Amino acid sequence: LRALIWDGAHARFVHDVPDPTLMPGTAIVRVLYAGICTTDLQILAGYMGFRGIPGHEMVGVVEDGPDHLRGRRVVAEINFSCGRCPSCLAGRGRHCPSRAVMGILGADGAFADLVRVPTANLHVVPDTVSDSVAVFTEPVAAAYRAEEQTRAFARGRTLVVGAGKLGLLLAQVLAQRGDEVSVMCRSDTARGRVEMLALRAVPMECAPLGADLVVDATGSPEGLAIALEHVRPLGGLLLKSTVAADHHVGLARLVVDEVTLIGSRCGPFEPALAALEAGQIAVEPLLEAVVPLDRGVDALAQAGLPGKGKLLLRP
Amino acid sequence: LRALIWDGAHARFVHDVPDPTLMPGTAIVRVLYAGICTTDLQILAGYMGFRGIPGHEMVGVVEDGPDHLRGRRVVAEINFSCGRCPSCLAGRGRHCPSRAVMGILGADGAFADLVRVPTANLHVVPDTVSDSVAVFTEPVAAAYRAEEQTRAFARGRTLVVGAGKLGLLLAQVLAQRGDEVSVMCRSDTARGRVEMLALRAVPMECAPLGADLVVDATGSPEGLAIALEHVRPLGGLLLKSTVAADHHVGLARLVVDEVTLIGSRCGPFEPALAALEAGQIAVEPLLEAVVPLDRGVDALAQAGLPGKGKLLLRP
Repeated sequence: LRALIWDGAHARFVHDVPDPTLMPGTAIVRVLYAGICTTDLQILAGYMGFRGIPGHEMVGVVEDGPDHLRGRRVVAEINFSCGRCPSCLAGRGRHCPSRAVMGILGADGAFADLVRVPTANLHVVPDTVSDSVAVFTEPVAAAYRAEEQTRAFARGRTLVVGAGKLGLLLAQVLAQRGDEVSVMCRSDTARGRVEMLALRAVPMECAPLGADLVVDATGSPEGLAIALEHVRPLGGLLLKSTVAADHHVGLARLVVDEVTLIGSRCGPFEPALAALEAGQIAVEPLLEAVVPLDRGVDALAQAGLPGKGKLLLRP
Repeated sequence: LRALIWDGAHARFVHDVPDPTLMPGTAIVRVLYAGICTTDLQILAGYMGFRGIPGHEMVGVVEDGPDHLRGRRVVAEINFSCGRCPSCLAGRGRHCPSRAVMGILGADGAFADLVRVPTANLHVVPDTVSDSVAVFTEPVAAAYRAEEQTRAFARGRTLVVGAGKLGLLLAQVLAQRGDEVSVMCRSDTARGRVEMLALRAVPMECAPLGADLVVDATGSPEGLAIALEHVRPLGGLLLKSTVAADHHVGLARLVVDEVTLIGSRCGPFEPALAALEAGQIAVEPLLEAVVPLDRGVDALAQAGLPGKGKLLLRP
């Protein structure tokens, strides 16, 4: 198969990677689209020390595996859990201590023609959801996880810091549950996207907003300090950015104002697919371009530029 | 009156500070004991930019004020709230945006013969609670605030990082509600105190504990990183340390493991006084020495030494 490979120093496009073999409990999925995520860029900056084929946002067709799945169009939950440990048995498989994570930790990902995924992780995509919408299921699921974790602040004033792809998904999901959402924008491009989604844009330099809930979706270590400026006493701050670098931040305000800071990672696929099927979350405005896989190294370099929308790789 | 004064550069003992005048809604309290807290040491390191008389842990006798309080032995809540703003009207006076805080922000404190306190902040001390126990009410209240904020993790495995005065109060309050509490100790002195309180001591170098709840009571910017090492996925981390310095910490684990970090400051006096009256919280083992107020500058220099117990100033 053809794939993008990260070797710890360079990302390369390789023509002749051995095909994944079918193992019990898995399926081989032919990738239709794979999305580039900020986490992929963090991996290229050292995050998790990953080596191999990145890519954890994808839609594909099952090429080999159980009969009931073969030929079906699927998306894949990215945490490959053991299914037997106390975390898994308690329904917290995303926190299985011996998990692999597709394209992030101990398992090759979807920047390739084919990817091997445990069948337990696959969700069949409804026919009415197009490929280029379905590929957003994983980040939309992450937004639903943030929703689950912040229900104490539902229907309040919410600020999303960072108008990137994930920020705009989070903003939509939180607005849908009734939050009064603002999105902090650094650029006119970002502001345009925010307003196209009928959300309120606020500039970076705005006075402290005293929001009930602030979401740091900047993907940068500076985001937390900005978020802390805008949360009210006793408010919530959801940290969605996984960054390889350390945070250098004064947390005295978090203590004095008794703010609750909530780490958030991966989310449930069911509500994400349902919302995409119902057309409740717009993903088209987030899409920048589709790039052939063999130009993926270039796409990775482009993906981190400010204001860039989602780049999809097509094998 | 005589007082310790912090001028932003030096702490001095001064003989001839003008007495506080009685204002409507306040009482003048003659200080019996005032406790030195790590926050006082942080103030001397620049925290809050405070200038004036520090001291926010105290017990005293009302010298002037309303008849029903005159001559009564009292402790004082430290947040002087406006009583009229939305925060105050919602019962969140400790987060009143225009509050003063006794000995910390905009109001002189108790390292003095006399201190002026709003009568709304005073609590009469039960007769059976001695002066040197009552002076611990404020930090015990802070421990009860931590208890309120962490009930989602009650009766689980709890680690308190930092065996200082506040850490040992927190450990006792959390053990009393049924948590299985360990306290991380740096010194043999600290370990001795922990074991005297019938709590479990663990060394600094122990392997990750995977605790349900970790409390950072180190009073140092390094505490958070240590705490993060020992909390389980989806666990809670209570940050009790107000430090003037920035934190330099990698928060990727907080995101990946979806940890909830809870800032915690001041607490409710009622359960604290009730627990002290019932003898449920031992404070005597935390007491190092009583120092005359005129030797307070020296006491402030001593108070931060590792393993030091509580120093009480006596005017």
